[in-house]
Amino acid sequence: MRILSSEIPSAVGQTVTVAGWIHRRRRLAAVSFLVLRDRSGLSQVVVKEPGALAQLDELGEETVVQVTGRVMASPQAPGGVEIVDPVIEALTEPAQTPPIELWRPSVGAGLPTVLDHAAVSLRHPAIRAGWEVAAAALHGFRAALDGQGFTEIQTPKIVGTATESGANVFALDYFGRTAYLAQSPQFYKQTMVGVFERVFEVGPVFRAEPHDTVRHLAEYVSLDAEFGFISDHRDVLAVLREVLATMLASVGTRAGAALERIGVELPSIPAEVPVLHFTEALKLAGADPDEPDLAPADERAIGEWALREHGSDFVAVEGYPMVKRPFYTHPQPSDPRWSNSFDLLFRGVELVTGGQRLHRYGDYAAALAAKGESAESEAYATYLEAFRHGMPPHGGFAIGLERFVARLTGAENIREVTLFPRDLHRLTP
Amino acid sequence: MRILSSEIPSAVGQTVTVAGWIHRRRRLAAVSFLVLRDRSGLSQVVVKEPGALAQLDELGEETVVQVTGRVMASPQAPGGVEIVDPVIEALTEPAQTPPIELWRPSVGAGLPTVLDHAAVSLRHPAIRAGWEVAAAALHGFRAALDGQGFTEIQTPKIVGTATESGANVFALDYFGRTAYLAQSPQFYKQTMVGVFERVFEVGPVFRAEPHDTVRHLAEYVSLDAEFGFISDHRDVLAVLREVLATMLASVGTRAGAALERIGVELPSIPAEVPVLHFTEALKLAGADPDEPDLAPADERAIGEWALREHGSDFVAVEGYPMVKRPFYTHPQPSDPRWSNSFDLLFRGVELVTGGQRLHRYGDYAAALAAKGESAESEAYATYLEAFRHGMPPHGGFAIGLERFVARLTGAENIREVTLFPRDLHRLTP
Repeated sequence: MRILSSEIPSAVGQTVTVAGWIHRRRRLAAVSFLVLRDRSGLSQVVVKEPGALAQLDELGEETVVQVTGRVMASPQAPGGVEIVDPVIEALTEPAQTPPIELWRPSVGAGLPTVLDHAAVSLRHPAIRAGWEVAAAALHGFRAALDGQGFTEIQTPKIVGTATESGANVFALDYFGRTAYLAQSPQFYKQTMVGVFERVFEVGPVFRAEPHDTVRHLAEYVSLDAEFGFISDHRDVLAVLREVLATMLASVGTRAGAALERIGVELPSIPAEVPVLHFTEALKLAGADPDEPDLAPADERAIGEWALREHGSDFVAVEGYPMVKRPFYTHPQPSDPRWSNSFDLLFRGVELVTGGQRLHRYGDYAAALAAKGESAESEAYATYLEAFRHGMPPHGGFAIGLERFVARLTGAENIREVTLFPRDLHRLTP
Repeated sequence: MRILSSEIPSAVGQTVTVAGWIHRRRRLAAVSFLVLRDRSGLSQVVVKEPGALAQLDELGEETVVQVTGRVMASPQAPGGVEIVDPVIEALTEPAQTPPIELWRPSVGAGLPTVLDHAAVSLRHPAIRAGWEVAAAALHGFRAALDGQGFTEIQTPKIVGTATESGANVFALDYFGRTAYLAQSPQFYKQTMVGVFERVFEVGPVFRAEPHDTVRHLAEYVSLDAEFGFISDHRDVLAVLREVLATMLASVGTRAGAALERIGVELPSIPAEVPVLHFTEALKLAGADPDEPDLAPADERAIGEWALREHGSDFVAVEGYPMVKRPFYTHPQPSDPRWSNSFDLLFRGVELVTGGQRLHRYGDYAAALAAKGESAESEAYATYLEAFRHGMPPHGGFAIGLERFVARLTGAENIREVTLFPRDLHRLTP
């Protein structure tokens, strides 16, 4: 019966079987150390018997082995224990030398090499850490919304029209017709508010981004939520705050070892996220009051303000100008130049966008007419049908998973925390 | 403060506010009944006051309203309570008459009409029930695997090569190159066993199925699991059994009301699923012993046998001929004509396919050579790189979410339980 590396410390004096990859071999004069890696971490095996020493010489790093031996306390060993008198059995043929050195604590290879060999380089504990954080974040996202009565949905990624923005969309041949890859589940999640009131979706979204930057991916994982019977965007922000708090707690609990490995400390999110109106934000950043958007330097200044004044790594800017927001955005009732939407900044960089949406058919018709389109057009027919038949005031938000993890871990390039990135140049592995 | 319909019975004597859709209005001589629908169910509002009666006449079914009134016990009302002396406030403009009658207990419209207006017809409690079962099943799938140390992954849906089967693949224009939509995460989930040992993924898969049947979709949700350090496919079957048991339990707990609404009783899965070898299965079905596959009638006969002999709705057939399985399938060590793979049948119909995979690079090279392909070719380079660098014995399975729900609910057409089906003819809504 196999046990995990993490279980060895509680098995001192017993004979156990562990299995995993040969992470590293260290050959000394009369003894070799075999460091074994499994999903729970590392363990040390002490090899002295000549037959076993010769056997270990033949098995390269990354060979999968099963080791049976006795657990001994050993203050110098990692975890304070080691396995002695081992019987080693190779479960595969001896492995070839990996394309990057997986046993070194830091990653020696450059990003292109790491990405070209992702299937193997992700085994590096420091590289794997990024996705461990992502998986823990996914778990927290769902747990938070599940606890608040949200229903998970899965909506189509092949769609008939490219409505949200005509550009940056991938076209495909769908049984002789042209179809597109969905840029977001926005329209579907809104209509599903009419069915389930509160919905979330975790799934891929596709952007034919012609830019080659450290922030853009052609495919990423979007964490979407949308819910009805709200007063305004402040209700959306309150749910988002709960969701982020649960995501962070989940990362701490489930990926604590990964964070430690890469030296990252989790931020905390205040019970009430400070909120600035867009007009105040411009003023605070010393920007021209007629600017329709916040420049990166403005966002940084606002982030510093939040930390200084509220001790918070998070700050929300609400009321972005309607002209900069998508047509389904709900205006600010007191002044329709501004919107009931927000950006949530984390340490001075945009992390999540959310807000209230229009919920009356007539408002959609007017918003589309204002940009020279018709609510009657085929592109909007399905979407807007839901609004003809009764939709409550609602809103939502979307979190880009890889962006979230990159911000949290301080990764300079979003590709560092993406399992198999897709971009302008990269389509494999 | 809004409460849900399901909370009204515990608020007798109190004044409460509920909100939702006007599910139905019933006008009698001196009184009207307003049946309100929210995400938790239905509640009844009694309207007597002339002003409110006139107001209700103006608001069609599906209008979103908020109702404040006093809760009274009323044995004849659904749930034993009703709201009296209501103040009704419309949260949207009066809704137009829906494309299908949502208040009738059974669905009056044909499937094409239902699907054409999915965003609205899914509000029908009996239609919505299918997805409530799906969402509960998703929750159970993840909970089961999470409890067994699996890591969630999200792998690319845009891929560079169409390796698993050249046919039935959607091609797209990827920045001027041809790319494809992934038919399954098979290769990725296998290589990720080398990183996390145990992985699962929930995501869309794409099949350019040129067939127009009640079973095929061009896009569906695949529930994939893959894990290492197994002895053989029986270990995979054991995990699958646990996963299905948890999925069924989750459906019972979370979608019990939905099941009741559509009159479905959950099956139970035995602690040990009966297993037949393929050769025994042919014999039992009275089929030609040289048949390379089971015909639908054979599967039905095996399902009947399992029910008769083991009182089980589930039965696994192992050892399918290697010639009928994909190249990465592990042969049966005692006789390589057969495979270490299985189909799990539910009530005589295939529900899940799984098995052990090859884990040695040399075996992959031989398997590909046997079908006239090369392990060195670019199509397999990334996939097989993982195997050059040490992969443990492993296996896994895939469950089609919509198929699972259709089997469970007895839906005749898989489209009935798919939020927005995609097929040869249907690309919208």
